[in-house]
Amino acid sequence: MGDDTAIIRGSSRRHWLVTTDLSAEGVHFRNGETDARDIGYKATVANLSDVAAMGGRPHYLLVALAIPKLWSPEEIDRVYEGIMRACRAHGVELIGGDTSASKQGLFVSITLIGSVPPGHALRRDGARTGDLLYVTGTLGDSRAGLQLLTRRRGQTTSSASGLSSAHRQYLIGRHLRPVPRLQAGQVLAALRLATAAIDLSDGLSGDLSRLCEQSTAGAELDMHTLPCSVPLQTYSRLTRQDAATLALEGGEDYELLFSVRPGNTTRLARVAQRLGCRVTCVGRVTAKRAGLTLRRPDGRTVPVPVASYEHFRS
Amino acid sequence: MGDDTAIIRGSSRRHWLVTTDLSAEGVHFRNGETDARDIGYKATVANLSDVAAMGGRPHYLLVALAIPKLWSPEEIDRVYEGIMRACRAHGVELIGGDTSASKQGLFVSITLIGSVPPGHALRRDGARTGDLLYVTGTLGDSRAGLQLLTRRRGQTTSSASGLSSAHRQYLIGRHLRPVPRLQAGQVLAALRLATAAIDLSDGLSGDLSRLCEQSTAGAELDMHTLPCSVPLQTYSRLTRQDAATLALEGGEDYELLFSVRPGNTTRLARVAQRLGCRVTCVGRVTAKRAGLTLRRPDGRTVPVPVASYEHFRS
Repeated sequence: MGDDTAIIRGSSRRHWLVTTDLSAEGVHFRNGETDARDIGYKATVANLSDVAAMGGRPHYLLVALAIPKLWSPEEIDRVYEGIMRACRAHGVELIGGDTSASKQGLFVSITLIGSVPPGHALRRDGARTGDLLYVTGTLGDSRAGLQLLTRRRGQTTSSASGLSSAHRQYLIGRHLRPVPRLQAGQVLAALRLATAAIDLSDGLSGDLSRLCEQSTAGAELDMHTLPCSVPLQTYSRLTRQDAATLALEGGEDYELLFSVRPGNTTRLARVAQRLGCRVTCVGRVTAKRAGLTLRRPDGRTVPVPVASYEHFRS
Repeated sequence: MGDDTAIIRGSSRRHWLVTTDLSAEGVHFRNGETDARDIGYKATVANLSDVAAMGGRPHYLLVALAIPKLWSPEEIDRVYEGIMRACRAHGVELIGGDTSASKQGLFVSITLIGSVPPGHALRRDGARTGDLLYVTGTLGDSRAGLQLLTRRRGQTTSSASGLSSAHRQYLIGRHLRPVPRLQAGQVLAALRLATAAIDLSDGLSGDLSRLCEQSTAGAELDMHTLPCSVPLQTYSRLTRQDAATLALEGGEDYELLFSVRPGNTTRLARVAQRLGCRVTCVGRVTAKRAGLTLRRPDGRTVPVPVASYEHFRS
């Protein structure tokens, strides 16, 4: 435990990774607002991302569904369609599951089985003082996409109405159809480049805090280095939000955060294009007593706000 | 798929079994009526029983819980206590899981990983015409226990009031704390005595129908041979119910139903005491076109009623 994914010692050639994630209606998604295919897809990606954070390859999937009477067989088929789309994209085979009635709300519980060569698994507890912190891709897009989706119903005129359709679709797509960083995780594991890794499901601040706790370490983030996409920058300007704060606190990006020894950063730069996505250095690992700090653009250092992503509740 | 448990090819020494089961509040249990420990215990046994039906050994467990605000941390601890009790009893290690908020109702999703030597797994599709059908233990106790639990609230005077406290506790215990037939499954698999096997979670009639469908076979059950415990016989007499009907249609006994070639019944009798429970011959496998039939005590043959166990819904 500790890592979201358990390791089972298999043969001398591979160890198994097992992870399970549960998505609940009204907590992770709402019926009628989310295409049922996106519910299935995203529930699957949450698991794939856990395996990516260990540097593993995903193989087999089991799905347990609790289905309320309100959900039609067609809608349930669409949930499976989304699950199968995520499976096909990453060569994963659906091997079993269970269905049950539900008095209230759809529940999607997914178990994913992957593998990693013995000794290769990325863990959360290996970050050491002086290591540099990197993230894959860009951060905060998913949170912006969620805001666009949920604002659509309440507010008829939105301050984000100046956003181009392409930017809007990009941000919503990043929220509904995130891409697990399996290739990046596998390359980092195979080359033993990461001393620790975690996937960003709850937001950078929350997941960094988790990684540091497991590694008995502190961390300093450089706020101006947090990678923000052009659509996010445009969106945050229009909505008068700070893009770096969205990047820091927004969850469900499913990017990887990992630490690298200073002596290995040149090697990382050399293999960067094999990771399948951009990587950005966002800070460094410090002693535990230094806590989690954020270096602001003006040079001041403040504690990292611990408000990590909370699933919406009404 | 087809079997509730998936097989993953592991090393030359063992294959992995993976099964997942979901229990939902208001469907499988009700808050306040069931001790939270029994909820956790029973959800675990449902998975252990799936592995027993494959002849496997259970090893690792993952638990995903969706927790409503109404449930206190103490109650959730009791759910885990029940899970751990079932795990300890069978040498199973809890290796991971996930928790989530729930808008309505507790959901318990359990994934169990077991193993079986290659080629040993019991399957559902191997029953052939002429094979004899056996069940472990006694049938119908769990349904009677459920009736005793649910009648307690509605009816102040019950026709079962003449039941001794020991018999009442036995039947309720069989409903709340069933024992998975792991030893029996492992011995049947190791000695290659069963041509097919399934665990009785939905009731003999329903699960026999499933086994026959997978094996492309029919079956004839001898009604007078269905093994009924003394407490069940007493209870059914007092409540004017037919014990054999409870044995046939009552679910959640978690006994095993298996088929044995006629030439192997003597071997089965010789090793019976190694199974850890009684076994009873209850019928035989027939051609598919003969369907599922029931030989009544008067010698008449009638179709097996297909009404299998339905989880209580209100």
